[in-house]
Amino acid sequence: MSELKNDRFLRALLKQPVDVTPVWMMRQAGSYLPEYRATREKAGSFMDLCKNAELACEVTLQPLERFPLDAAILFSDILTIPDAMGLGLRFAAGEGPVFDRPVRSEADVEKLFVPDPEGELQYVMNAVRTIRKALNGRVPLIGFSGSPWTLATYMVEGGGTKDYAKVKGMMFDRPDLMHTLLDTVAQSVTSYLNAQIAAGAKAVQIFDTWGGVLTPRDYQEFSLRYMQQIVAGLTRENDGRQVPVILFTKGGGQWLEAMAETGCDALGLDWTTDIGAARARVGDKVALQGNMDPSTLYASPERIRREVATILESYGSGSGHVFNLGHGIHQHVDPDHAGVFVEAVHELSDKYHD
Amino acid sequence: MSELKNDRFLRALLKQPVDVTPVWMMRQAGSYLPEYRATREKAGSFMDLCKNAELACEVTLQPLERFPLDAAILFSDILTIPDAMGLGLRFAAGEGPVFDRPVRSEADVEKLFVPDPEGELQYVMNAVRTIRKALNGRVPLIGFSGSPWTLATYMVEGGGTKDYAKVKGMMFDRPDLMHTLLDTVAQSVTSYLNAQIAAGAKAVQIFDTWGGVLTPRDYQEFSLRYMQQIVAGLTRENDGRQVPVILFTKGGGQWLEAMAETGCDALGLDWTTDIGAARARVGDKVALQGNMDPSTLYASPERIRREVATILESYGSGSGHVFNLGHGIHQHVDPDHAGVFVEAVHELSDKYHD
Repeated sequence: MSELKNDRFLRALLKQPVDVTPVWMMRQAGSYLPEYRATREKAGSFMDLCKNAELACEVTLQPLERFPLDAAILFSDILTIPDAMGLGLRFAAGEGPVFDRPVRSEADVEKLFVPDPEGELQYVMNAVRTIRKALNGRVPLIGFSGSPWTLATYMVEGGGTKDYAKVKGMMFDRPDLMHTLLDTVAQSVTSYLNAQIAAGAKAVQIFDTWGGVLTPRDYQEFSLRYMQQIVAGLTRENDGRQVPVILFTKGGGQWLEAMAETGCDALGLDWTTDIGAARARVGDKVALQGNMDPSTLYASPERIRREVATILESYGSGSGHVFNLGHGIHQHVDPDHAGVFVEAVHELSDKYHD
Repeated sequence: MSELKNDRFLRALLKQPVDVTPVWMMRQAGSYLPEYRATREKAGSFMDLCKNAELACEVTLQPLERFPLDAAILFSDILTIPDAMGLGLRFAAGEGPVFDRPVRSEADVEKLFVPDPEGELQYVMNAVRTIRKALNGRVPLIGFSGSPWTLATYMVEGGGTKDYAKVKGMMFDRPDLMHTLLDTVAQSVTSYLNAQIAAGAKAVQIFDTWGGVLTPRDYQEFSLRYMQQIVAGLTRENDGRQVPVILFTKGGGQWLEAMAETGCDALGLDWTTDIGAARARVGDKVALQGNMDPSTLYASPERIRREVATILESYGSGSGHVFNLGHGIHQHVDPDHAGVFVEAVHELSDKYHD
């Protein structure tokens, strides 16, 4: 194993001292980069790109060539697990992801199974191994998965939705069925993330994109509970190094205390929560990741730097902060503005660390 | 003036004793009702319906014929003010509202003016007067407006948006211009709501649909501040009766304390906040309105009743609660389920009132 040359990101997640605040961007390998669009074109469809280890590795590394980022994140999709379960994933133009065989009935739920990470999902592990090798210890690689609730929304709705009628319908009237579904997905996510860790991921993040559409009660029962089950089942050490786990519920700012109780190492924050107030609420329990409004990258470089300064000041001194956007980078952002953001974090955070 | 036969809604907003918890539904006059769809067809376009006082009155009263609701709400659109400013509102099929002349430059902002509520907007006041007469004291009529920030998002973007690139771009880089725009809109909303009150509205609600896409700092400076300015400028008494003001920021659950300081009488809650926890946070300062997840209406009648019971129990005993959905009713809901909801609130809340 190659030694990590830059381990700021892992150290901050574990609240160990760092020289400057580490930074990465959700969706940093994405269509705001012309070189990404070129590789994507070469690959064919979005899933073709995910399934080609060499090309997935190429796009994973692209943002690192441009910006002094402190972590790489596996290029993949959150819907690989339900796709591996045989639901028939495709990306319809202008519609987003669609499942040809959505999960609607008791019979549909019974057919679900835990995919083999080195079987149906081996293409993901191949990508992790290829990227780890290419990174050669430059920065840590982050593995990830969607949360069970988030995956369930796509699996039951069969695509995007405004009102979550079908998935909430099942949750309200067939909670038994919903729990069976979520348990199978949680088992799948656990084995999937453990395989990513075995293949070389140094930290993992669970993306709970749709937890924020639930009531506090339903969030606890149908989303948080299954993320907790996953956290409890993860390999938390590899190659003699702790593997930190980050939970990110978009719109979950009201539930940070409960999220911090799951045993995870860090919470991702969207931009609707003040990070200083969040730090006061969770205390020493977890590190925090975030949380600049991604739309700030449409502003001028000077305004971007001021926003970075405001967030650093709000968090205050000491380790435990990984800087990030509060959600994925938007596709129409000027890449130079992303560079201003990343550099500003390093430059302006120096004074908050001994 | 006819005496109000049912003033539960107004009494609860002022924390005065009531026999049962009052209830209404955001967007209760809407396309989930077949009779609404019939009137809408007769009217022509959506704005034709808003501009025809007789037909706007007809649809306002339709849900009251079906359900024992404790308030009526003016049928109109939140974009009447920017339309009256000459921005050219139209509703494009499948696209939602579009402004032909969006506000992008300093020159565009300078052209904005405060519309005369009995001039360009007289059709709204005519609708209020027609509805008040038709209601004949049956229940109070609620007037409403969009919040300045929410109206600004449509005015600057010119239509729907996912990333708020243009409006946030102006906010970040030309805060002076954004403040001029918001001040003009806030003055317009104040005179618009005061005219609705003069015409017969017994309470008013400000819909801050997009305040929740801001950081806490930007929310205070660009949304809440202008709602506070409006609250301070409203006629708070009419016909010897207090006119309560309700603020509703979707996604504003983290900012209730600040919202309660504006001088409003009540806060609308979406379903991501526990109403009992919210009550503990705002204390006696304001009443609360909400907050069942509108998607619960897709569930079975029994499940709907259980959710109503849970929310009533969470709020607890005493006045100060107006039951509502946490957002507008969805268009594919079975009207009978809406009826189950409304009746459950009255039936199950009896025990929480002396």
